[in-house]
Parts: sequence; C-alpha cells; structure tokens
Amino acid sequence: MDLALYLEERKQLVEHALEELLPPVHRPPQRLNAAIRYSLMGGGKRLRPILVLAAAEAVGGGIPPLLPFACAMECIHTYSLIHDDLPAMDDDDLRRGRPTCHKAFDEATAILAGDALLTYAFELAAHPVAGLDPAIQLDALAQLARDAGIHGMVGGQMMDMEAENRSISLPELQNVHIHKTGALIRCATLAGARLGGGSPEEIRALKRYGEACGLAFQITDDILDEVGDTQVMGKTAGNDRKRNKASYCSLLGVAQAREEAASMVREALEALSPFSSVADPLRGLVRKLLDRTH
Amino acid sequence: MDLALYLEERKQLVEHALEELLPPVHRPPQRLNAAIRYSLMGGGKRLRPILVLAAAEAVGGGIPPLLPFACAMECIHTYSLIHDDLPAMDDDDLRRGRPTCHKAFDEATAILAGDALLTYAFELAAHPVAGLDPAIQLDALAQLARDAGIHGMVGGQMMDMEAENRSISLPELQNVHIHKTGALIRCATLAGARLGGGSPEEIRALKRYGEACGLAFQITDDILDEVGDTQVMGKTAGNDRKRNKASYCSLLGVAQAREEAASMVREALEALSPFSSVADPLRGLVRKLLDRTH
Repeated sequence: MDLALYLEERKQLVEHALEELLPPVHRPPQRLNAAIRYSLMGGGKRLRPILVLAAAEAVGGGIPPLLPFACAMECIHTYSLIHDDLPAMDDDDLRRGRPTCHKAFDEATAILAGDALLTYAFELAAHPVAGLDPAIQLDALAQLARDAGIHGMVGGQMMDMEAENRSISLPELQNVHIHKTGALIRCATLAGARLGGGSPEEIRALKRYGEACGLAFQITDDILDEVGDTQVMGKTAGNDRKRNKASYCSLLGVAQAREEAASMVREALEALSPFSSVADPLRGLVRKLLDRTH
Repeated sequence: MDLALYLEERKQLVEHALEELLPPVHRPPQRLNAAIRYSLMGGGKRLRPILVLAAAEAVGGGIPPLLPFACAMECIHTYSLIHDDLPAMDDDDLRRGRPTCHKAFDEATAILAGDALLTYAFELAAHPVAGLDPAIQLDALAQLARDAGIHGMVGGQMMDMEAENRSISLPELQNVHIHKTGALIRCATLAGARLGGGSPEEIRALKRYGEACGLAFQITDDILDEVGDTQVMGKTAGNDRKRNKASYCSLLGVAQAREEAASMVREALEALSPFSSVADPLRGLVRKLLDRTH
C-alpha cells in the first residue's frame, strides 16, 4: 500500500470535516473564532483522528460517521498545545513554524481558545453516530474524558512540569509519557475500534497497538528534539536539553533511545498480528515513526 | 416551604457527591488534585447543580441518578472561575473570601486545574443515568457543551473582555450576559427537566424559567457589585466600576436595574405557572435573588 497517499487522503478528509464542523469564522466572537481556526488549521499531521479512522477501518467500520469523533480528538490535541505554549507553562513562541496562539493573538484569547476547543471536542464526540448504540458512544466519550483529563493527558502535563529541573528515573519518565501523550493516542485506536464495531478481541488488540504506538511516538519525538533541526520540526529543537528536562535521550543516550523506540514499534506490530492487510495503514504509521529519526 | 432548609439539604447532597466523585487527593499528581479540591470545595452556593435537581424534582424525577450530571455543572462553573481569575484575564486575587487558585498555587497549576475540571465535567455528564435512554443523555451532554462553549459561556467571556474600556449599549450588555452566565443556568434547568423525564411542555417551561433566572441572577450580581461590600460578597466589590466595565447599574442606574431584575423574576415565576407546589423551590430560588439586593 501507498502509505503517503493514504495519510494524505485521510488528512484531507479530517481537515475538510474540521472546516465543516468548526463554528463559522464570521460569527461572533470573531477574534476567538479566528484564534481557534489559526491554531486548529495551522498544519499538523492529524495523527490522532487518522488513528481513529484507521482503527475503525481495521475492524470493518465506515469512516464518515466517525469523522466528528475523530475531529474531537484533534480539538483536544490542539487545545493542549495552545495551553502548553502559554507563558506560565512552556512559554513557547513557535509552533509548527508559526507564532504560537498567544503570540499571534494574546494570552487571554489563547486561554479561551483552548477552553473553547476542549469544550467543542465533547460537543463533537456527542454527535450521534449513525447505526451505533448510544450507550457505547456515551462510554467512548467518558473514556475520552478520562484519557484527556487528570488521569491522562492533563495529569501527565502536570507531572512533566513537576519533573523539570530535577533528575527523574526512566520509569518516572515513562509514567509521564504514558499519561501526557500515550493516553490520547491509545484512546484514538480504542475509540476507532469500539465505534467501528470491533469484537472484544479486536478492541483489545487495537488498544495494545495504541499503547505501544504512543510510547514509540514519544521516544521518537525526544530523539527528534535532540538530533533534529528547528526548520524541519517547525518548533524549537533542543528545547528539552535547554530546560534541563529529562528525556529518553538524556537518560538512555540517542542510540539506546532508538533501540527502545524500535522495541515499541515491534510491540505495536505484534498487536496487529491477528489482522489482515486491513491494518496495513496502522502498520505503516508506526513504522514511519521510527523512520523519521534516521 | 422552608427554602433555606431546602437549599442547605441540596447543597449538602451536591457537596457530598462532589467529595465522592472527585479524584482522591492522595493520588498523583497531588498538587493538581489539591488545587482542584481547593477551588471546588471552597464554598459557593452550588446554584447550578441545585437548579438541575430542583428542575428534575419539578417534573417528578429522582435526585440520586442525576447527581453526577449536576456535579458536572459545578465543575464547569468552577473551572470558569479559575480561568477568569488568571492574571491574563480578570487578574483577581480573591474569590469567595480566599486567595484565587493561581495565588494559592501558581499560574500553571491553575490553568491545568481548570482544564482538568472542564474535562472531568464531561466524564461526569457521561455517567450512565439509571433508567434513562442513553440517546437523551448524549443529547443533554451535547447541549451542555454548546452552552459552556464558544456559543455560550466561553463566547460570553470573550465578548465581556472585548467590551472592557469601551462603551456598550444595553442590548450588547444583555447579549454578553445571556452567553456568559445565562447559557449555563438555562442549561441546568433544561437538563434537569430532560434527564428527570419531563414532558415537552414541562421542558419548554423550565428552559424559559432558566433563561429568565439567569438574567435575574446577572442583574442582581451587578447590583451587588455596585452596592455590596467586599466582606459579604467574598470578592472585591466595585470591581466593574474600577475597570470601567459596563454593567446594568452603569447603564440603567441602581433603581432601574432593580426594576429590570424584578421583571425577570416575574417572567421566571410566570414560566412556572403550570407547575404545582413541586416547583416551589424554583420559585423561592428566583425570588431570593432579588432579596439579596435589598
């Protein structure tokens, strides 16, 4: 299969759906709508929504009914970037090669744009999915809230902040990442499998895939931060080191971090072994993570 | 009926449920859990959750199954206060007689505590309600997201900020309040009526009640800000005037603002006319708003 083509097509589906589903930009409050669009439509790989769709496809589910839920995951991801970039948090000026939301607008607008996106995510996640038992959808939405909240992404962000400027162990670092980025990525494949009508075994397998994929993603991100350059990444490279932030590279060195990432990729592929070629996009996606670091 | 007793009993039910439903404070990240508890359990009238319960009671619904949804509304209200108080927003040091969240903890923790509470609200709103069609609950949750988001509370907050230091008209001011505080209060009675199993007419009536009640609440709040003292309010009085912020008092004068509030209270009571004494708590609640201003 042509992974690049697949990713481009899915990305366009997601971006088209986001355009359709977003509040119209001319509606008041205009400045807030503009800030939301600026952040949400400013590029990005759309990894989380694509994972929702790819997992649903792997269990034979249709794509169109799942687009609102997939877009909800992108809204949550984007809000987290807007808030993480704030002066009181990571204080970043550059994101995806452009000024961060609070730089392009102002701090108050950025706080509210994040709040609005997070809230909108749940409005989208509650869009009725044709042919789906609403009880399952309600449960998938509750899982999304858990994985995005204090026992998931927000909790991981807090742990990450608390770990700055002190030395932490590898298990502690892993715990940060399992929460900060892993929870939402696992949630994407889990939700896709459930909303797509997967069997309990398929759901379990795709959850395991998502878990390994999330860790592989974070480790390769650390490697890119260490060896990448600012231009390619669209954000400031070497940020972690500059902040004395522990990373897989600082704890393991780049070579062993690569080995760790490779092991996670193997784990993710292993989880997909019960699936036929319907899971090839998921296989390609996780392999691609590793390729970026070379 | 003894309104004070009713409100105290319902408040205790809500606070007990919040204690039960909140993430345990000893669980990591502890500092974030502590900030959440500090803000959520630091007093407050619990108006929104009590409105959910009172509206459900008015249509013959039971209270216990609705407690998670009622608590969700308090989480959303509390997150909005935490974020509104931030230095980049209203920059308030005092809330309910105590240091605001970012003063008691720090700015980053306050941002994340707000994010966590907003996210948790939707986890609570998705708790299965015994005996209720999940499709209705999904729809009530989507309505909650709409009323809390860009076309509701968050949008109103943005409009409010944009209106600072410029003169606005009464219709503009009303539009701000309909969004900023009105939407969530209307949502509370609407959700209570729907989740409590009300008929379409009952649901319509309680929505109309909530709408009028929300406006009455905001006008009386403006009057209190003008004539109240800091000690009684637990927040700094005269704030609006100090900031050159338009209010019902600055636009209409205190006497006519009181008349406007009284008219909203009449409208709310009128909406309740089809109900027997089961709606007496709702009647008492809206009358009490007016009493505070004398």
